[in-house]
Amino acid sequence: MQNFDYHTPTRLIFGKDVIKELPEVMNQFGKKILLTYGGGSIKKIGLYDKVKELLKDFDIYELSGIEPNPKYDPSVLDGVKMCKENDVDVILAVGGGSVLDCSKAIAAGAKYDGDPWDLISYQVKAKDALPIVDIITLAATGSEYDAGGVISRTETNDKIGYVDPLLFPAVSFLDPTYTFTVSKKQTAAGCADAMNHIMEQYFCEDSTLLNDGFMEAGLKSLMINAKKCLDNPEDYNARAEMMLTCTYGCNGIYSLGNSQSGWPLHGMEHALSAYYDITHGEGLAIITPRWMKHVLSEKTVDRFVKYGVNVFNIDPSLDKMDIANKAIEETYKFFESINIPMHLREVGIDESRIDEMAHHVAINEGLDEAWVPLQEKDISDIFRASL
Amino acid sequence: MQNFDYHTPTRLIFGKDVIKELPEVMNQFGKKILLTYGGGSIKKIGLYDKVKELLKDFDIYELSGIEPNPKYDPSVLDGVKMCKENDVDVILAVGGGSVLDCSKAIAAGAKYDGDPWDLISYQVKAKDALPIVDIITLAATGSEYDAGGVISRTETNDKIGYVDPLLFPAVSFLDPTYTFTVSKKQTAAGCADAMNHIMEQYFCEDSTLLNDGFMEAGLKSLMINAKKCLDNPEDYNARAEMMLTCTYGCNGIYSLGNSQSGWPLHGMEHALSAYYDITHGEGLAIITPRWMKHVLSEKTVDRFVKYGVNVFNIDPSLDKMDIANKAIEETYKFFESINIPMHLREVGIDESRIDEMAHHVAINEGLDEAWVPLQEKDISDIFRASL
Repeated sequence: MQNFDYHTPTRLIFGKDVIKELPEVMNQFGKKILLTYGGGSIKKIGLYDKVKELLKDFDIYELSGIEPNPKYDPSVLDGVKMCKENDVDVILAVGGGSVLDCSKAIAAGAKYDGDPWDLISYQVKAKDALPIVDIITLAATGSEYDAGGVISRTETNDKIGYVDPLLFPAVSFLDPTYTFTVSKKQTAAGCADAMNHIMEQYFCEDSTLLNDGFMEAGLKSLMINAKKCLDNPEDYNARAEMMLTCTYGCNGIYSLGNSQSGWPLHGMEHALSAYYDITHGEGLAIITPRWMKHVLSEKTVDRFVKYGVNVFNIDPSLDKMDIANKAIEETYKFFESINIPMHLREVGIDESRIDEMAHHVAINEGLDEAWVPLQEKDISDIFRASL
Repeated sequence: MQNFDYHTPTRLIFGKDVIKELPEVMNQFGKKILLTYGGGSIKKIGLYDKVKELLKDFDIYELSGIEPNPKYDPSVLDGVKMCKENDVDVILAVGGGSVLDCSKAIAAGAKYDGDPWDLISYQVKAKDALPIVDIITLAATGSEYDAGGVISRTETNDKIGYVDPLLFPAVSFLDPTYTFTVSKKQTAAGCADAMNHIMEQYFCEDSTLLNDGFMEAGLKSLMINAKKCLDNPEDYNARAEMMLTCTYGCNGIYSLGNSQSGWPLHGMEHALSAYYDITHGEGLAIITPRWMKHVLSEKTVDRFVKYGVNVFNIDPSLDKMDIANKAIEETYKFFESINIPMHLREVGIDESRIDEMAHHVAINEGLDEAWVPLQEKDISDIFRASL
């Protein structure tokens, strides 16, 4: 087992109607709130009105229209400006992972005198950040329980995972009923994103019985519950279990003491969604089985055997390579079964920029230190196999 | 799924030689430290000298001799007095769960003007507590990652679980090498304690795929790794995995959203070790299979089937009651295989005070609201079956 330093100070308030505690929670941080949200789905489900009603005694400034794959310009820059101009005490992010990721960058930028990009690009270490509270409306990224966010900068095709312990939300509200209206497409993409968060930790050199069991349970739970949510979008227990399983995704709890995997799938997918602005979870689902095939070898086969036997109940008496290949096929078939487009061409990506993206990944993502090291050629091969 | 409010702000610093970070960590809290420890095993393994050397620039006051099943009088009272007289900034607990539990009660008592028993017995809610840092030397209680402690008061035979969010350790250092010298008896008892923490959460009305998988993995990990530790006390990976699995035991992470079980085994065992000062983990191991037999019924059998199939790989095609009974038998055989005395008489408990203890439990532990409600007669029957 590897040494680790683990600290997740976020408070999770989970369940139906927990939002009633919002005023008391916000009061701990101050009266001036920057309310951040996306394209308006929180208005459709009545959550916007509910929040405004609950916080009628607070001063609320609003940043709306935060994009999926949230943008440095305008969203982060606008939010930072609003915080500084209005002396905001706390950010309340209401929405999915993109809204919260963007809010984290705003929280750090608001307490920094220079260009927030200095922080996001790790040229300067933040010294302070505004506190963040969130109400999460999508089961996917786990941003509600981690210290990171992913920010895109259009003009440079950068999509950077910005992580700093200052960015843990202070409090995350998770009410599964807010996910009842999430579309089938986004439900499936959220499931794929969360499965990938687990797989990025599962496929590594050293793990433990405890972590493997936890992660295998997480993967099975996501697959079973995603199907239930697609069949019946208002299945409370299925939405709730999906929400919690996603929440654990990125703060490390699934794999404390494991060796590092290098998160190769996220490293590659960030280029796809930076260059083409596709749905992150779909990008991940498409490249995952192709990456698996690419890295399967005599050296890695045992890990795939464990995955196949424990997650897909494949007969352990079969030949090891057969189990591994069958596990990869089952992974593909699962994503297909929840109607994820399984070819890059289906989401608008053709061959034209593959080498450019592979070059970008090779330079920026450090995947030559991943569980199975990936060079530029490996990355472009995986992209091509995904077309 | 049930609603929940989860917040575990403790930082875990885990692994070989992590103690080198101790001075930097302690500096965050102040210069005046109350160092608490037990019977001196930390001196035998050189940890006491190491701590003193690392903290040579701090003012250290020492409370030693904290008992297993730590006592309100003298340990808690002495510690509170020392903190108040010396204006202590932070408590450093070095040892097992008992030392840490006692230190938590001291931390609250030090910031309270009245009799600390007011706090422990929930007559008064603490408003503040000293920060606590710990270096844990025994894989068992999980006190290093929860907000509770168990304190015994000899003259009244009380053994109370005192829980308050103020009591989370700020930082827990976990170096598995400190557990290399733990005796076979204590290694086995620690395993039994930790298994029971999981079983107390597993046996309930409603759980999820995620939690069940996590807990089943925890139980299997404990059983396999305890045997490895007994065979080779310096097996680093086995000690490390046991340590982490134990750490999760009592803060709720194994069962977020599950219905409550009422922790019946701990409720009953607290009387045994309060009246007879036996080793807590041994008391738990002895009563567990007897409790299981007592509560097994057509209504509860499915939970035992899941336990038997997933934890002990019992053939799922067998009759349900047969699977359940076999699972209970396997539980007993496992505890026996790690040389835990499996009868109360072997740890010095005879029939004489069984009814008195059952009465005490029935009045104080609220087990009539447990997963399977237990009345006084049930409790004395379980104790008698354990003789």
